[in-house]
Amino acid sequence: MTKKLANNEIVSSIKDVADDVYTKIRGHKQPQLSSPLRALSNVRYDPKAGYFELVGKMKTSTLTASSAKTFAQTLRMMALSKQLVETNDVATKREAYYVSKNWDEARFNEQPESDGVMDDIEAMLQVNREQMGFTPEEKGGEVAGALTVIETDPETGEEIKHDCSRFVSGSYSIPSSVEDLKFETKAKFILAIETAGMHQRLVKHKYWQKANCILISMGGVPTRACRRFIRRLADEKKLPVYAFTDGDLYGFTNIYRTLKVGSGNAAHINKYFCVPQAKFIGVTTQDIIDYKLPTHPLSEIDIKRGKDALKNDPFVLHYKPWQQAIKEMIQLRKRAEQQALAQWGLNYVITDYLPAKLSNPKSWLP
Amino acid sequence: MTKKLANNEIVSSIKDVADDVYTKIRGHKQPQLSSPLRALSNVRYDPKAGYFELVGKMKTSTLTASSAKTFAQTLRMMALSKQLVETNDVATKREAYYVSKNWDEARFNEQPESDGVMDDIEAMLQVNREQMGFTPEEKGGEVAGALTVIETDPETGEEIKHDCSRFVSGSYSIPSSVEDLKFETKAKFILAIETAGMHQRLVKHKYWQKANCILISMGGVPTRACRRFIRRLADEKKLPVYAFTDGDLYGFTNIYRTLKVGSGNAAHINKYFCVPQAKFIGVTTQDIIDYKLPTHPLSEIDIKRGKDALKNDPFVLHYKPWQQAIKEMIQLRKRAEQQALAQWGLNYVITDYLPAKLSNPKSWLP
Repeated sequence: MTKKLANNEIVSSIKDVADDVYTKIRGHKQPQLSSPLRALSNVRYDPKAGYFELVGKMKTSTLTASSAKTFAQTLRMMALSKQLVETNDVATKREAYYVSKNWDEARFNEQPESDGVMDDIEAMLQVNREQMGFTPEEKGGEVAGALTVIETDPETGEEIKHDCSRFVSGSYSIPSSVEDLKFETKAKFILAIETAGMHQRLVKHKYWQKANCILISMGGVPTRACRRFIRRLADEKKLPVYAFTDGDLYGFTNIYRTLKVGSGNAAHINKYFCVPQAKFIGVTTQDIIDYKLPTHPLSEIDIKRGKDALKNDPFVLHYKPWQQAIKEMIQLRKRAEQQALAQWGLNYVITDYLPAKLSNPKSWLP
Repeated sequence: MTKKLANNEIVSSIKDVADDVYTKIRGHKQPQLSSPLRALSNVRYDPKAGYFELVGKMKTSTLTASSAKTFAQTLRMMALSKQLVETNDVATKREAYYVSKNWDEARFNEQPESDGVMDDIEAMLQVNREQMGFTPEEKGGEVAGALTVIETDPETGEEIKHDCSRFVSGSYSIPSSVEDLKFETKAKFILAIETAGMHQRLVKHKYWQKANCILISMGGVPTRACRRFIRRLADEKKLPVYAFTDGDLYGFTNIYRTLKVGSGNAAHINKYFCVPQAKFIGVTTQDIIDYKLPTHPLSEIDIKRGKDALKNDPFVLHYKPWQQAIKEMIQLRKRAEQQALAQWGLNYVITDYLPAKLSNPKSWLP
C-alpha cells in the first residue's frame, strides 16, 4: 500500500533526474524539473483511498537566468540526499540548511527556503523525506503495551528488540524515522491518546493488559513520525486504530483529522502519513451531556474553527456524522477534556468509559 | 543529599498536619497552616548548596470565615494525596483539578487555583509533589547510551531493566515521576543536549560508545522530571554532567541556568530539581568566532534577556565568567545554534567539537 523504496532505488531516482539535466545541458537544451503542485486546490478526498490525494496539477521549473539559483540549490540538495542515503547517515532539516552555508552562491539565507526545496524534491521523487535521509526536529509519540519493536543495528546486523510491555512507568519513544522498524504483537487494537497524562494513567494501571492493546500517546497533533508509526503498525498487523481525544474542535478537526487523512499543506505525502483505518472514540458533545462532564465555554476561536471546518474541510464535508458533531458542539457552546472523566473517579475512564465506548461501535465517529 | 521519604512517612506527615487542625478545632482554637513564602525575595544562591535556597520567610493561614474555602481545599487536597500514596496511584495536576469538581463548595473554579494549593502543600511538607502522587502533564527527556534504568513492578515485585544502549534509533523516554528508578552504568559522564536533532545524531553515530557516556536530550528547557532524573543519576553514580546548548541567551540563562540551579518561582523544591554538578560546554561567543559559525542577529528580546540576567539573576551575579559571556554576546550581537557546526560537515561535532571541548576544562563555563 505504501511505497517503500530501497536505498539503491532512491539513489537511482536521484541519478535519473540528474542525468536528464546533464544530458539536456550537454545537448544545449534547457533542463527542466517537474513536481506536483502542493496546495489544497490540487487535492481531493476519496474515502476509498482514505487520505487527501493529489489530482495531478504539476509545476515545472525551467533553467533560466532567473531560476538558476533555485535550480542549483535543488541539485545540491539532491546530491546531499544521495550522500546521506549512501553513507546511511541522516540530517535534520536544520542541519541541511547549515550544510548549504558552504555552497557559495547556492547557499540558503533562511531555513524556510531549504525546507521548500526539500518538499519539492520529496514531491518530485514521490518518496517521503525520511527515506531521503532528512529527519524532522520534532519527535513525539510514546508507546507502551502489547508490542515489541524490532530494529536492526546497521553496524553489526544484530536484531534488537524493544518490548513495550516492560514499562511500569516510562515508554518507548518513537524515533524520528520509523521506516526500518519491524513489529511483533498479539494485541487486538491500537489506542491513540491525545494527552501524555491520560496515557500515563493507562500505562500505570496496565490498561493495555486488560484490553490487550497497544497504547500510543500522541501528545497533541501527532507528528509525521507518530502517524507513520501507527500506520505501518496498523497495516502490517491488520489492527484497528481508535483515537481518544478531548471533546473539543481542536481534538476533532486538528488532532483526529490529521491522524486519519493527513494535512492540507503536505498532500503529496499524506498517503504515507495518515491512518485511514482510524475511528474516533474520544469525547463527543453527546458524551458531555450523558456523562455530565465538567466543561469549559467555547472560545470565539473554537467556534470559528468549527465553522471553517464545516465550510472548507473536504474530510468534514464528506462525513455527515462529523458535520453533526461539530454543529452540536457549536450549539452547546461547551467543550470537555478527556481528563474531565476524573470527576467520577480517577480510574472511571478504565472501568467505565473505555469499555462502554469500545463495545458500542454506534458511538464511534468515522 | 536529597530528601526521599517513604510512602508511610508522607502519609504520617499529612496525618500530623490534619491531627493538629482537628485537635485545635476540638479545643475551640483557630487552626493554622504554615508554609514557606514562595518568591524570589525569599531566595539566595550559595554555590556550596548549589541551588536557589529559601531563606526562611513563612506565610501562615489561619482558619477564619474568609479563609474557610482555601482551608477546606487544602485539607481536601491533602486527603487526595494521602489516598493516592496509599493506593500507589497517581493523578496529573489536571486530574486533581477535575476530582475537586465533586467537592461541592470546596471545588476549584480554575486549575491555577488547585495548582497553587498543591504548591503550598508541597512547600509545607517539604516534599516534591511527585512523591505526593501528583504528576505533571509534560514529560520530556530522552535517554540513550551506557545506562540501564531499573524499575520495580509494584504488582509482581519484579525488577525490570531498560538497557539504554540498545537503541539504534529511538530512546528511553523519562517518565513523569522518577523517584523509584534505579541505575546501573559504567559511563564516565552525562551529556545533556538541548535539541532532539543533535541527540539523534549522537545516538545514530553511537557517540556514547566512543566517549563512554550517557546521552540525554532535554528538548529545550528541561522539565522537572528530566532535571530530577539527571540529578539522581549524577548523585548516585558520581558522574559529571556536561550541558551542550545553542550559543544564545536562551541556552545560557533559561536552559542551562534552570538545569543547574533551578527556577525562581519554584524555590521550595529546587533542591530536588537542579543539577549543581553541571558544567557548560555549549556554544560560547568565543566559539562563534573561533569556529566561524553561521549566525543569526540577536533580537531585541535576546538583548533584554541578557541585560535582565546581568542585573537580576542571582546565579549570573555570582559568576564572573557568565557575566563576561553574556556581555560578549550582547556586544557581538550574534547568536549561533549547536547545529551550525554542521557547516563543517555533519559529523564535525563528533570528530572535532565535542572532543576539543571535553579535553579542555578551561573552555567550560561554571
